[in-house]
Formats: sequence, C-alpha cells, structure tokens
Amino acid sequence: MTVTAYSVTGMTCGHCASSVSEEVGAIAGVSDVKVDVPTGRVTVTSENPVDEAAVKAAVEEAGYTLVGPA
Amino acid sequence: MTVTAYSVTGMTCGHCASSVSEEVGAIAGVSDVKVDVPTGRVTVTSENPVDEAAVKAAVEEAGYTLVGPA
Repeated sequence: MTVTAYSVTGMTCGHCASSVSEEVGAIAGVSDVKVDVPTGRVTVTSENPVDEAAVKAAVEEAGYTLVGPA
Repeated sequence: MTVTAYSVTGMTCGHCASSVSEEVGAIAGVSDVKVDVPTGRVTVTSENPVDEAAVKAAVEEAGYTLVGPA
C-alpha cells in the first residue's frame, strides 16, 4: 500500500473537497482520498504507487491545481 | 414579477452558489436566482413576492445563512 500527499490550490469549501475526492478516488487502484481544505493537502492511498500525472489530471478535472508533492 | 435581493453568508465558491441557486430555485413561483459569491448577494426573481421565511429555509437547506434583505 502506498500513501502519497499532494499540495492542491484553489479549494475553499467542503464541496471543493468532495469534487477532488471524487475525481482522484476514480483513479484505478486508489482506495482512499483525504482532503484538508485549509492546507490544501490531499492524501491518496493506493494499492501501488499512482502516476502523479494521473492525480494532477484528476485534480484539474475537478477544477483545481496540483502544485506538487506535499 | 418581483425581484428581491438577499444577503447570504458562508458561500465561498461556485459549488456553494450552485447549492443555493438549486434550493432557492425550487421554491414555487421562483423563475430565476442569481448568486454573487464575493458579496453574498442572492437575487431572486419570482412571479409574485416570495415569503422571506421560505427563502431563508432554502438557503439554510443548502447549508448557508440568510442575514436579511440586501
């Protein structure tokens, strides 16, 4: 199991967190996503390491920006 | 036709605006709802005047607070 934290900007409320969680959670192999709105920290748990580009694309699909690892 | 503006607090993003718009728009007779997130101004267009208590209840259902007329 792999746990990776990313820094995401632009999230302001619980709806934003839900959108990110839904998109990132849809990536194959991802079993859990935790989002902390005040810090912008998104923690992804997956069976195997997930390609950061896939996480970045999912975050952008939700309407936010992945800055990099947190 | 009646146009009434209300002041709503707690909205931070477009998702918040959508939630408020959806709930207030569901009130009988309401034909249009405009939400401005930065100012918290919610403008309601309706066939006849709508009871403020109904608007307040809809805003609270969405998770926000109607302060009063704007």
